[in-house]
Amino acid sequence: MINLNQASEELASIFEHIEDNLDYTLDKTEELVKQPSISPESVGIEDCAKIVADYFTDFVCDTSEVVETDGNPIVYGEYECGAEKTLLGYFMYDTQPYDEELWDQPPMGANLVSMDMPDGEVEALVNRGAFNTKGPMVTFLAALRSIKETKGELPVNLKLIAEGEEELGSPSLPGFVESYNDRLSDCDACFFPFFLQDQKGNVDMYLGNKGLVYFELECSGSSWGRGPEEYDIHGSNKAWMDSPAWRMIGALSSLCEGNDILVDGFYENVDPLTRKEKELVEDLAESFDPEPIKEINKVSKFSIDEENTKELIEAYVGNTTLNIDGIWGGYTGEGSKTVLPYKVTAKLDARLVPNQTQDEILEKIRNHLNKHGYEDIEINVLNEGYGWSRTNLEEDVVQAGVETIRDFDLEPRIWPRLAGTAPFYLFSEELELPFTFGLMGHGGKEHSPNEYIIFRGNEKIAGFNRIQQSFVRFLYRYANR
Amino acid sequence: MINLNQASEELASIFEHIEDNLDYTLDKTEELVKQPSISPESVGIEDCAKIVADYFTDFVCDTSEVVETDGNPIVYGEYECGAEKTLLGYFMYDTQPYDEELWDQPPMGANLVSMDMPDGEVEALVNRGAFNTKGPMVTFLAALRSIKETKGELPVNLKLIAEGEEELGSPSLPGFVESYNDRLSDCDACFFPFFLQDQKGNVDMYLGNKGLVYFELECSGSSWGRGPEEYDIHGSNKAWMDSPAWRMIGALSSLCEGNDILVDGFYENVDPLTRKEKELVEDLAESFDPEPIKEINKVSKFSIDEENTKELIEAYVGNTTLNIDGIWGGYTGEGSKTVLPYKVTAKLDARLVPNQTQDEILEKIRNHLNKHGYEDIEINVLNEGYGWSRTNLEEDVVQAGVETIRDFDLEPRIWPRLAGTAPFYLFSEELELPFTFGLMGHGGKEHSPNEYIIFRGNEKIAGFNRIQQSFVRFLYRYANR
Repeated sequence: MINLNQASEELASIFEHIEDNLDYTLDKTEELVKQPSISPESVGIEDCAKIVADYFTDFVCDTSEVVETDGNPIVYGEYECGAEKTLLGYFMYDTQPYDEELWDQPPMGANLVSMDMPDGEVEALVNRGAFNTKGPMVTFLAALRSIKETKGELPVNLKLIAEGEEELGSPSLPGFVESYNDRLSDCDACFFPFFLQDQKGNVDMYLGNKGLVYFELECSGSSWGRGPEEYDIHGSNKAWMDSPAWRMIGALSSLCEGNDILVDGFYENVDPLTRKEKELVEDLAESFDPEPIKEINKVSKFSIDEENTKELIEAYVGNTTLNIDGIWGGYTGEGSKTVLPYKVTAKLDARLVPNQTQDEILEKIRNHLNKHGYEDIEINVLNEGYGWSRTNLEEDVVQAGVETIRDFDLEPRIWPRLAGTAPFYLFSEELELPFTFGLMGHGGKEHSPNEYIIFRGNEKIAGFNRIQQSFVRFLYRYANR
Repeated sequence: MINLNQASEELASIFEHIEDNLDYTLDKTEELVKQPSISPESVGIEDCAKIVADYFTDFVCDTSEVVETDGNPIVYGEYECGAEKTLLGYFMYDTQPYDEELWDQPPMGANLVSMDMPDGEVEALVNRGAFNTKGPMVTFLAALRSIKETKGELPVNLKLIAEGEEELGSPSLPGFVESYNDRLSDCDACFFPFFLQDQKGNVDMYLGNKGLVYFELECSGSSWGRGPEEYDIHGSNKAWMDSPAWRMIGALSSLCEGNDILVDGFYENVDPLTRKEKELVEDLAESFDPEPIKEINKVSKFSIDEENTKELIEAYVGNTTLNIDGIWGGYTGEGSKTVLPYKVTAKLDARLVPNQTQDEILEKIRNHLNKHGYEDIEINVLNEGYGWSRTNLEEDVVQAGVETIRDFDLEPRIWPRLAGTAPFYLFSEELELPFTFGLMGHGGKEHSPNEYIIFRGNEKIAGFNRIQQSFVRFLYRYANR
């Protein structure tokens, strides 16, 4: 097997194949991104699943199948070459919706446009789903194809899963992982292809992510047995009738004070950061620049003193949170209509860190509301949520990723955890697999108009060729460890 | 002049004229209700104002004019016959909007339909604005016409004001009253024609109404200087950024606890009910039935023990309130989008009783927010609001109304105050005129689909004929006192 430390020549033929097939890779990327697969709107899902299944076998797999679920189908593929290690590849083929009017390029036109970046012009492919995450999927599959066509076989066996409900909170994935447990249990590690470079080419890597529980609180006269029960009534009745709106305010205010969560035991299962995680935070803190994060979010001040970058990063990585995502009730139109609202609803999410669980947090919030006399306030859990995931920096699959980034003369900034959510807990906690995601490449505006990925890079940002090179290097580095 | 106590024969000719002209009155009512005059949507206002000005002179006035304002025109008319007393008549010609799909009859079709009432079938006229308040306006004008055409002149002089912005909070009326002060200052009392009977024919009269101040509270990252300032950002940022939504919850919860308002000095200018008002409450309490009020509002329980009807009525009449009319912010759609909202807005209203003032209450809320550290939360006053109004039961104009109801063998239930609002304070407090409103007649569903008034009544509910008779009796009773 190729040893990367001595064998750049042995990789040369693969890289040449990648270069020779750039148009093919671009064509296949364009084909996939132009196929709608908008899970929140149930558009194009079945057709896209079939294309992904074909890509699996066309590019690399021995077999692939479209597995029906209670929701959108999951595409499953296998490649077996008798290698020592088996890698589980995770993909998603669904995308967010788009509002065409807000786009500068057609959202499904796969237009190539030049774009200015800090270190020089690049050529970008603009399309919904290009970055999140059809571009990473196709470039990864194309890299596998280049290895297979030049070397005959891959350095690892593969089991590939592409789900079509990531934008819905992956409701069918847990059941799939359970029912396919026999076939997945012999995997050694999990990898999610993604583009981790920022606009300057820097790479942030993450050793896990937070979990999520998302629910609505509903305070209504009908549950309470006081105040209006069926519709908003004339506001003058406040003089002798109760207000579910004020009750909701009271209940919500009992949950938090400033940024402190007052729910009994909410923090009790929060593991403090480990010594190793703290070391990572200290490394990050040395060079961390809060300005770009403030600029992109239009936030002039963090909740933690930003001069103390260590505490700032510790908060991002380590804090469990209780957030109000939305609230509504009563008259919300123009002008001054006086009503006593019969119902107020709030959407809340809690971000979970090890060792919090979704069930535990929901139970504690229920107990808190009951203890404060709000038995009638309903908690409606909106989706299955996600558990947190965690992997160790020392794991082969993680180290292979780190070494690959270093192959490009970059030093990755390694974060103990991403504050966002992903279904990695199914792999890290259920299947007990180490995992990583990446690697080279840059994209932006996922979930927003003008989503893009970089096809031709500049000195700092990898284009499709260096992206695929990074996947090739990663596979050999992982196989060789 | 006709003395009502001996002179039913002298009224007979007027009542005969009313009876002979019922079709004319109905025609003119239909004509006016079918003319749109939807102030919240600025539909048909100018045309309706012209019709009202014509009605004024056609029915009774010597002169009328359409007075332009910064908003919708006000129609002003005068009738002068050298009588001892001058009555100021107040009307509104604007209406609420309608959603045609929700109506059983065309909302602008002026259809006559039979309707079941507790004491027998009636014939109702269904149209937006019929009850609120074009029906009362036309039947009152028609009663004046019948007096004039049979007796040659009215027992009182008249100054008539019809505004076109009542549904918007009467923003132009204060300026009008001020600029027409010279002409209005010689009035002796104010009367607002309305239908006060409920479905069983009972009459509630009111000696005033509460005032109103209506405002929005806006809590935003941009005012606060913390949290997101321009748009909702990804929810995971809660780990290190502040939430304007939680801040709004904290601020609101500082304002009220249960039904107690915690704003410093909010209650300090509340006059306790006078001895006379308390006597009225005791009278009301003896026969007060809370069930219909609970039924119509779909409320199973008052905030005050309903067994104690005296306390219940005291609360309705005497309580100042702070009410949440609506609240919104962040993601309020389907499903589970995680955002950290940059802004939350709440609409609130305070109902004012003597001697609270709008400026005072707004200042106290501002001071309260500042004292609790919420200097950044903005208070946006949405309209001019209304002051409270109060008149004495002993006033001639009020007693004339009471006696008129008794002429129909009914005993009016007299409330010290309506919890709703109206611009009567301009007449009672600015012009210092006693006032009353009524009298016989029934209507319903103002502001709702299928708004109606009763054209042909039953044994208990007055139809157009007895409605007009009540206006005639009222005028003579008032003139004779």
